[in-house]
Amino acid sequence: MTIHRHFDSAEQAELFDVVTRISEKELAPVAADHEARADYPRHLVTRLGELGVIGLAFPQRWGGGGQSVAFFLQVVEELARGWLAVAESVHLQALTCRGLARHGKDELREAYLPAMLEGRLLGANCMSEAEAGSDLGAMTTAASPVDGGYRISGLKTWVSHAGAADVYLVYCRTGGAGPGGISCFLVEAGQEGVQVHPPFAKMGVCALPTAPVAFDGVRVPAVRMVGGRNRGMLVAASVFDHGRLGIAACAVGLAQAALDHASDYAKQRRQFGSPIASFQGVAFLLADMATQIAAARALLLTTARLMDEGRPVSAEAAKCKLFATDTAMRVTTDAVQILGGSGYVRDHPTERWMREAKLLQIIEGTNQIQRATIAQSL
Amino acid sequence: MTIHRHFDSAEQAELFDVVTRISEKELAPVAADHEARADYPRHLVTRLGELGVIGLAFPQRWGGGGQSVAFFLQVVEELARGWLAVAESVHLQALTCRGLARHGKDELREAYLPAMLEGRLLGANCMSEAEAGSDLGAMTTAASPVDGGYRISGLKTWVSHAGAADVYLVYCRTGGAGPGGISCFLVEAGQEGVQVHPPFAKMGVCALPTAPVAFDGVRVPAVRMVGGRNRGMLVAASVFDHGRLGIAACAVGLAQAALDHASDYAKQRRQFGSPIASFQGVAFLLADMATQIAAARALLLTTARLMDEGRPVSAEAAKCKLFATDTAMRVTTDAVQILGGSGYVRDHPTERWMREAKLLQIIEGTNQIQRATIAQSL
Amino acid sequence: MTIHRHFDSAEQAELFDVVTRISEKELAPVAADHEARADYPRHLVTRLGELGVIGLAFPQRWGGGGQSVAFFLQVVEELARGWLAVAESVHLQALTCRGLARHGKDELREAYLPAMLEGRLLGANCMSEAEAGSDLGAMTTAASPVDGGYRISGLKTWVSHAGAADVYLVYCRTGGAGPGGISCFLVEAGQEGVQVHPPFAKMGVCALPTAPVAFDGVRVPAVRMVGGRNRGMLVAASVFDHGRLGIAACAVGLAQAALDHASDYAKQRRQFGSPIASFQGVAFLLADMATQIAAARALLLTTARLMDEGRPVSAEAAKCKLFATDTAMRVTTDAVQILGGSGYVRDHPTERWMREAKLLQIIEGTNQIQRATIAQSL
Amino acid sequence: MTIHRHFDSAEQAELFDVVTRISEKELAPVAADHEARADYPRHLVTRLGELGVIGLAFPQRWGGGGQSVAFFLQVVEELARGWLAVAESVHLQALTCRGLARHGKDELREAYLPAMLEGRLLGANCMSEAEAGSDLGAMTTAASPVDGGYRISGLKTWVSHAGAADVYLVYCRTGGAGPGGISCFLVEAGQEGVQVHPPFAKMGVCALPTAPVAFDGVRVPAVRMVGGRNRGMLVAASVFDHGRLGIAACAVGLAQAALDHASDYAKQRRQFGSPIASFQGVAFLLADMATQIAAARALLLTTARLMDEGRPVSAEAAKCKLFATDTAMRVTTDAVQILGGSGYVRDHPTERWMREAKLLQIIEGTNQIQRATIAQSL
Repeated sequence: MTIHRHFDSAEQAELFDVVTRISEKELAPVAADHEARADYPRHLVTRLGELGVIGLAFPQRWGGGGQSVAFFLQVVEELARGWLAVAESVHLQALTCRGLARHGKDELREAYLPAMLEGRLLGANCMSEAEAGSDLGAMTTAASPVDGGYRISGLKTWVSHAGAADVYLVYCRTGGAGPGGISCFLVEAGQEGVQVHPPFAKMGVCALPTAPVAFDGVRVPAVRMVGGRNRGMLVAASVFDHGRLGIAACAVGLAQAALDHASDYAKQRRQFGSPIASFQGVAFLLADMATQIAAARALLLTTARLMDEGRPVSAEAAKCKLFATDTAMRVTTDAVQILGGSGYVRDHPTERWMREAKLLQIIEGTNQIQRATIAQSL
Repeated sequence: MTIHRHFDSAEQAELFDVVTRISEKELAPVAADHEARADYPRHLVTRLGELGVIGLAFPQRWGGGGQSVAFFLQVVEELARGWLAVAESVHLQALTCRGLARHGKDELREAYLPAMLEGRLLGANCMSEAEAGSDLGAMTTAASPVDGGYRISGLKTWVSHAGAADVYLVYCRTGGAGPGGISCFLVEAGQEGVQVHPPFAKMGVCALPTAPVAFDGVRVPAVRMVGGRNRGMLVAASVFDHGRLGIAACAVGLAQAALDHASDYAKQRRQFGSPIASFQGVAFLLADMATQIAAARALLLTTARLMDEGRPVSAEAAKCKLFATDTAMRVTTDAVQILGGSGYVRDHPTERWMREAKLLQIIEGTNQIQRATIAQSL
Repeated sequence: MTIHRHFDSAEQAELFDVVTRISEKELAPVAADHEARADYPRHLVTRLGELGVIGLAFPQRWGGGGQSVAFFLQVVEELARGWLAVAESVHLQALTCRGLARHGKDELREAYLPAMLEGRLLGANCMSEAEAGSDLGAMTTAASPVDGGYRISGLKTWVSHAGAADVYLVYCRTGGAGPGGISCFLVEAGQEGVQVHPPFAKMGVCALPTAPVAFDGVRVPAVRMVGGRNRGMLVAASVFDHGRLGIAACAVGLAQAALDHASDYAKQRRQFGSPIASFQGVAFLLADMATQIAAARALLLTTARLMDEGRPVSAEAAKCKLFATDTAMRVTTDAVQILGGSGYVRDHPTERWMREAKLLQIIEGTNQIQRATIAQSL
Repeated sequence: MTIHRHFDSAEQAELFDVVTRISEKELAPVAADHEARADYPRHLVTRLGELGVIGLAFPQRWGGGGQSVAFFLQVVEELARGWLAVAESVHLQALTCRGLARHGKDELREAYLPAMLEGRLLGANCMSEAEAGSDLGAMTTAASPVDGGYRISGLKTWVSHAGAADVYLVYCRTGGAGPGGISCFLVEAGQEGVQVHPPFAKMGVCALPTAPVAFDGVRVPAVRMVGGRNRGMLVAASVFDHGRLGIAACAVGLAQAALDHASDYAKQRRQFGSPIASFQGVAFLLADMATQIAAARALLLTTARLMDEGRPVSAEAAKCKLFATDTAMRVTTDAVQILGGSGYVRDHPTERWMREAKLLQIIEGTNQIQRATIAQSL
């Protein structure tokens, strides 16, 4: 099956080819092993950063590639086809950079952004807390003013890149209750008082570490506040749409991998004297999988282009995230079904992909939160 | 809710505005009444033809507008939002013209195309027979050579525009069994031996007449053969993708109308002291409807652009048709649900839209045939 | 396909055979015609009443059959297989009788119940109002005390049997706001001040009239209050579960009819040289339809038996209504699909069944209300 | 939520209480740990055997309990609520015994059945081969006649209980091609030439070992043939329905566990100031889960009773397997969703249940094979 790609230049097409090769030759072959050992492949993320992948859609001023978000997302999708954890790590890194690039003081951006976009310095967002998941406005991690800066204390959870990251963007309460009293700070991982808990034993995407991170009286100078005082949720909100589209891109790539694998299997696996792909019971299932993926990809591309045009896309991005991740969940589950027993064991990647897909329905705003966002736009 | 449109020029944007106005002011208000009386609105199709809508994506040589298929389909979608029967009639007319434009002899094209694109001369395709529906290769209507031409006899069925049409493209057996023995002829409705049966009592889209048409020894000169001898299925196949995309556009427009109406209703209808749109049980349903429509529209637009670029899109067009029409069926059914009892009676258009949506899953290749096409591409 | 039936006695089996014969020979053949003319078949309901069908699960004291609800519902299902409107009419009549039997004063029961169970006197419930649908507690039709009784004024809507009914059970406000201020009265259709509006133009089930009924200062003596003063919602609530199960039975019968018809068609209709039932694309769809119906029927039977044992079944009845009617909607829609174009026209009953199915998702508490009821039980 | 149980006697109710206690106190608490270590809990299966659970629905002559299949399946469901692997092991053991009890020679039955029903001797079925999965008739493992018996050679795969089992029922080719040339033999695990491969690394249900088993010239005396020569597929077929119902019971129990857990969580987890169960977005999802489970349970119970009455239930059993396992897959996936991030990590059992559910859609005939069976019955 040919996937029609949409590039603006020969340069894009060339880079995409490189990415395809990396995805197929460097990511896919080692994914299972890393995932089984929960081993974060930092070197691969750095390698992609050096190739310019992380910074693709960032201004050249900070070392970015000045390309479109639409192109960057196609690259993320292509990476996810090889190994979700790497695609998601690249996406998360870009997302962290996005907040910094948009709201950080120049001093901060100059100090961190180039190294982060090159993948040499790894970043992470610290937003969720045990009692503040979908309801971020309820967070209690506090940043109290001390002379020249702030002192941060509290426990963040569900921090992706936890332990691997060099810098954390930490959202803290600096004002009154609710979303209007939150500020965002850049904290270095090596600072005193920062303690990373053991990673969660997730169902999948184990190579991407996720853990609580505790902040115990961590000192930050004022310059490290990203965005204005009590305006942290605006920083967060300014990257929500990027977050949704990135996850959608991951979902499309993952689903495509599952479809390709199931389709190849169905053409080779023979029962009752014929390839099982020749039975409509299997063939129509494959057709439905392919159709949903095509729709998800088109929705993603269309929305990315709107974003590139500068239009407001919150509701559209929420639709992308909802539709693409629900698609990935269904498609990977059905891929296991097509392989039958073979799909259920580690000899094939299908069972892993199914476990991985579930994460995507949950992170960057559960699909219930996306529905609420979409409904509000109507 | 804003629908982001994608135009290539200010001229397109302007024409689209005209179409929007026609759809909202001239189609929507009279649809229910025409449908109840099964009254074909020929004058509206002619009006749209005169505005250049039918010929939008045809070469200027034949009086067309030289615009993209992507734009034409957005126009069809916009018409369907107002009244499906008119959108489908425009689409069918363009489809008939498409076969003629691509395969007809110059003499034939000059004689018919300009008038057809202007909507003054209405065309129709005669393909299906009682025993040859999904399996068109089994048709038995025969064209036997007589001097200087052919004599056609047989009974066609499920002919849209039957009775209203001025010319019919009739597919007939001129050779051996199967799809390789079929030729296509242009027959005038007024010719001796052409007899239109009473229209079917369809569940919906009653204003668009559908009926069997009998051909009893109808004489056609050789010049009226469209495409080569025994190559009629190539003529048919060359417009299949246009057929699928046109129906998909109709489906998206219909679904959008249902979503808008349900959404407006939900914001105004109060129960338990609040608008029912404020209950997640309703709000999430609306969100799911909106998401599916957005995906269908994006898939349609993306595929149309591929077609405009000249790429092969058969599988993609099949995905569009499958996805968009399944979406229209679900969305219109759920729209009735959101209105409750009010949705089930003729005071609101929702019940009609639900009846209309079902047709789209069946025509231009049932969704089962689409799945078979998609599966073959994998 | 054999449907396994569950009878307690040979007497039940015998009556069921009679019902099967009536359903197949007297209902199915005339349904399409009556529906097209919106002609209520009162004589058939009376005939079934005389056979004891309406009163099957009522105490013998009032002329009932003393049989189980589980048996009665199987009979309703069997009637719905032939003609939904009649099954629903029988169910509605039994439902109206149920409220009266449980809460009416002896004088009232003696006067009305025997004739109603025999189908000679037709009853109807007047509950919904324009602004009080799912939220019945918001009704405004008022019964003001006058000497020796009450005077009722207000406009009820969505009254099934409206116009055909001889007696109405009318729910009116007699006390404060909310559900705790409502009482129920028996009103004769012929009384001064009762005026039936023209029936709604429904999408389906047109032979069962549904209309608003206006009450303009209608006098009722106190003895005609059913249930205690301000306790009308208890009367209503006491029959909710019966209402849900009856609709579920209608849904199962309707879905079964659609499956049988589609299955027969698929075995006879040949395309590509084989019956279409031999293609898994059709066969698996039929299998899914059959599976859902079997599950709906089993859930209904199991719940009916719990009710017969006197257990509380509100949540279970809500599940039945939700599941069975969603099943009917899907199955009838898919049945049209299997017949293709033939399914979309009046020559086959499938298009009618699809239109009819939608009503069942709406009445006796929309499926959203059912979900709310089920969720509360968790 | 109360689950209404259907017992025939106080004795059943009592035993069920014991099973409930074991499920909640002895299975649920240790499941996660055993599963993580892929440690088969043989002692628990033996304990249940000693309590009479395995033999519940077997004739007392062989040490069985003489109870109904309907009761046995409710017990299996209740075990699955605590720990799927144990429920499935009990079911598999009973299934192996079933073939032996129905087709074994008396000598064989006396020697093995009592110990097997008591759980002291563990059995396993060896049917599938690498190239003979859904198409069992293609198997190539051969039993060649040698004096006084047979010599078996071949490689079986997907053998549950492999390694733990004491006896294997091995299906081998003794005649011509296809299903009519297969016989079934009882082989002891300790015999020379029997070699168990390392178990598969399954996505879930890891505590129940599944592995290939190789037979290399294994000698079996003629008395150990179960069923007639070349009639092995009849032995297999005679227990297919039990196999389907057992898996369906496992699926219902697993889904119920997931619903209970998600429902409890949703009542306690607060976001935006309220328990998330109070949001319809969550509440309606729970309602849909509960509804599907109720339908699956009712279908299972109804079918089990038909089987107890001696009616043919192949199509009905296939519907049970299909519907219940699809339900378990959906419900467990949605349960993870309701818990969000918490559901995706090992701190809660939901992620494990989701992994386990997938197995049930595949084993004992994939759900595609079930659909084919159902379609044939139509």
